[in-house]
Amino acid sequence: MFVNRQRMRVAWGDCDPAGIVFYPNYFRWFDLATTFLFEAAGLAMPKLYQEHGLRGFPILDARATFSGSSAFGDELEMESSVGEWNAKTFRVQHRFLRDGRLLVEGSELRVCAVPHPEDPARIKAAPIPAEVKRRLSGDGAAP
Amino acid sequence: MFVNRQRMRVAWGDCDPAGIVFYPNYFRWFDLATTFLFEAAGLAMPKLYQEHGLRGFPILDARATFSGSSAFGDELEMESSVGEWNAKTFRVQHRFLRDGRLLVEGSELRVCAVPHPEDPARIKAAPIPAEVKRRLSGDGAAP
Amino acid sequence: MFVNRQRMRVAWGDCDPAGIVFYPNYFRWFDLATTFLFEAAGLAMPKLYQEHGLRGFPILDARATFSGSSAFGDELEMESSVGEWNAKTFRVQHRFLRDGRLLVEGSELRVCAVPHPEDPARIKAAPIPAEVKRRLSGDGAAP
Amino acid sequence: MFVNRQRMRVAWGDCDPAGIVFYPNYFRWFDLATTFLFEAAGLAMPKLYQEHGLRGFPILDARATFSGSSAFGDELEMESSVGEWNAKTFRVQHRFLRDGRLLVEGSELRVCAVPHPEDPARIKAAPIPAEVKRRLSGDGAAP
Repeated sequence: MFVNRQRMRVAWGDCDPAGIVFYPNYFRWFDLATTFLFEAAGLAMPKLYQEHGLRGFPILDARATFSGSSAFGDELEMESSVGEWNAKTFRVQHRFLRDGRLLVEGSELRVCAVPHPEDPARIKAAPIPAEVKRRLSGDGAAP
Repeated sequence: MFVNRQRMRVAWGDCDPAGIVFYPNYFRWFDLATTFLFEAAGLAMPKLYQEHGLRGFPILDARATFSGSSAFGDELEMESSVGEWNAKTFRVQHRFLRDGRLLVEGSELRVCAVPHPEDPARIKAAPIPAEVKRRLSGDGAAP
Repeated sequence: MFVNRQRMRVAWGDCDPAGIVFYPNYFRWFDLATTFLFEAAGLAMPKLYQEHGLRGFPILDARATFSGSSAFGDELEMESSVGEWNAKTFRVQHRFLRDGRLLVEGSELRVCAVPHPEDPARIKAAPIPAEVKRRLSGDGAAP
Repeated sequence: MFVNRQRMRVAWGDCDPAGIVFYPNYFRWFDLATTFLFEAAGLAMPKLYQEHGLRGFPILDARATFSGSSAFGDELEMESSVGEWNAKTFRVQHRFLRDGRLLVEGSELRVCAVPHPEDPARIKAAPIPAEVKRRLSGDGAAP
């Protein structure tokens, strides 16, 4: 399983009047962490989307459990990997830590989407490109 | 069980390059829908926080399942209620529909938070004010 | 000059650790207020974009002056109109008030964009559809 | 004049259905760039706020001019400095470039805010701490 780790900083605008991260932002970072995961595996998403005619990897379900809060200026480590593969879907697992302590754990079930052949404004599920599965199943960790 | 229904419009800036709502926005709307639910039950949150010395109702876990996408200009109906009560936590259930069709279903487990007595920068869990449970357990629906 | 007024509520997630609206959200609301302005004038944007093959009205410049802050739960009135017309651009003026007191004043210079004929991934400026100017120059105010 | 340069990547969720950055995000990045500018000058904002009893540096006015768009995956360079000092306010200038080409230019007029002595829920303007001006006026550039 290919694991990517990335550091990030909590911004002023990410936090709410209680002084802690407004929780939907973690899902925004899940999405970002998925982009970084693909890129670390050699799959730059804009190029990948173009080459395979994809409309992205929309979400079928997303969930997160919060065991600690974080505040403006905190440096967090995001840790992401694909934990489950299906024909047209895959689940990305995310963990956020601060100084080694787990704060947030969650996942995104994503589907490989292409434009619908009958109506390009709509999307339909498509098989995951083999290259995606191969690179993200690799047992090496990103440097 | 007190149920609140509220209409909303999908904005241009809520949508991504695939032309559909960027999914973390649904969690932003879950948070908003919880505010509307409380208000419809006669509990204006800013006043409630002030009167009970609360720091808000932070999230312990949040999840959503997506069965349809929505796009710029769509009118959605948000439907919210509290489906589970514990001493210091409660789960808010949310459903988003368009023209009666379910698009998103999810929930937020929230904890009642007060400033920590030893360090006001931190928070701790506190019992849910009786008024909150009473008003949101009512069997009447908001008009 | 056609003027639109719309009420909105400040959400918890719109505010920062100082307890006031995180300022980029006002620009998000400027964009939203422009959508509402068009709609109130009988120009639903998704339909307008489709009928005229537009890629939207991207921003050339945006500015805002803040003379008061607002907080969670505040009810604001947004007041918008087009104050300047050019061949391919127009300036939308926005004012935000609370209880009649002006809090924020600003504007957006927008350009009418269509897909670039040589590269549909890019955009180019195009003349503003006559219908847009006609409807938004009307001297009637939205009801 | 102390200048800070920082690289950033445009995320999927930063972009709109036209495939380009939704413009309010640039103001979010202006705010972030100001945080980075202070930090590069040795002024970590959370610590600075705590030591001087500040409630932050709210915005009096903000503006931006857009001469090019950017899309998902673009790497941008943010370049920030304080271009104007007054007793209680200062103007931060921002420029965003991609491959050396200027895309966005703007500024934020910020005021030094402390809790209002008569009502801590409100804020009032205060003199800028000398250390802030000294460090950000330095003629050295961040490494």
